[in-house]
Amino acid sequence: MRRVVYGVGISLDGYIARPDGSVDFLFMPKDYPMGAFMQTIDTAILGRKTYEVSLSMGGSFGKEIKSYVLSRTMPAGERSGATIVNDSPAQLVGKVREGAGKNIWLMGGGDVARQFLEEDLVDELYLGVVPVLIGSGIPAFPAGFPERKFELVENKSFSRGLISLRYARTREGGGER
Amino acid sequence: MRRVVYGVGISLDGYIARPDGSVDFLFMPKDYPMGAFMQTIDTAILGRKTYEVSLSMGGSFGKEIKSYVLSRTMPAGERSGATIVNDSPAQLVGKVREGAGKNIWLMGGGDVARQFLEEDLVDELYLGVVPVLIGSGIPAFPAGFPERKFELVENKSFSRGLISLRYARTREGGGER
Repeated sequence: MRRVVYGVGISLDGYIARPDGSVDFLFMPKDYPMGAFMQTIDTAILGRKTYEVSLSMGGSFGKEIKSYVLSRTMPAGERSGATIVNDSPAQLVGKVREGAGKNIWLMGGGDVARQFLEEDLVDELYLGVVPVLIGSGIPAFPAGFPERKFELVENKSFSRGLISLRYARTREGGGER
Repeated sequence: MRRVVYGVGISLDGYIARPDGSVDFLFMPKDYPMGAFMQTIDTAILGRKTYEVSLSMGGSFGKEIKSYVLSRTMPAGERSGATIVNDSPAQLVGKVREGAGKNIWLMGGGDVARQFLEEDLVDELYLGVVPVLIGSGIPAFPAGFPERKFELVENKSFSRGLISLRYARTREGGGER
């Protein structure tokens, strides 16, 4: 089964971005193997806000990774290399899983993350934690979803104090989704 | 200089307790060296809410560690093994540091932690992170303080997926407080 991996860089107080969306506090040290993670995924899902912030920061959406943007307001269709969809998270994940492929990267967007956690669609967490408290911002795990248990899969320290954590969702009784 | 160590157990989404104050989701595995930490401190500071929750859960405040409870409303004085003070965090830390001794454990209380971070009184973080998202609760780092940079001192994994993180505050230009 293709797994949904919620992968984000966060401050030590759990923010993916400052209140204005900027992510200047995040960094990726040279010894951090982002490439190894990228090889495990071929699809990305993000929220409309994260999509717009990415574009405004000069980001682009290429062909190596198929990117879906969840939006209730934007018209569905191709735009700037991404595919805008008006589906619910569960609908979209279901459709993506109809095809064979690698894992699915949930790239963030606080609201989208909460929806995915509420619908219990997150199979793994992949967190890069930078050693700074920023004091306010957009939370990686916005309040308002039921308890979700995980098991620690990996915990590594990298240069400049970045730690990388991998967790897998443990669903009692239910087994694999 | 006696250092202020903010030491708490937290969920993966950064809560020290559920909304009602309960901490049933926290655990301390047998291989976790809490005793080693306890040997480095001789003083504890906590907020009034944490104090009351501790007492209601059958906790007690003994003589090995001198415990101060910050409160604006309770009368100052000795009570249940702890010392209630009406000082500001900076006043209390200043008074404690007039005497020689070991480090000072800031035991939590979301509001108290925010005050300490706002006044830049936290010298170290000592976090035990349990592998569960609880979805709502009392945050370890409530929003509303300026950015505070740290360096990673220690990152260890323990059984049942607990990770233990130690960070030291890095104050540019200012050196030791």
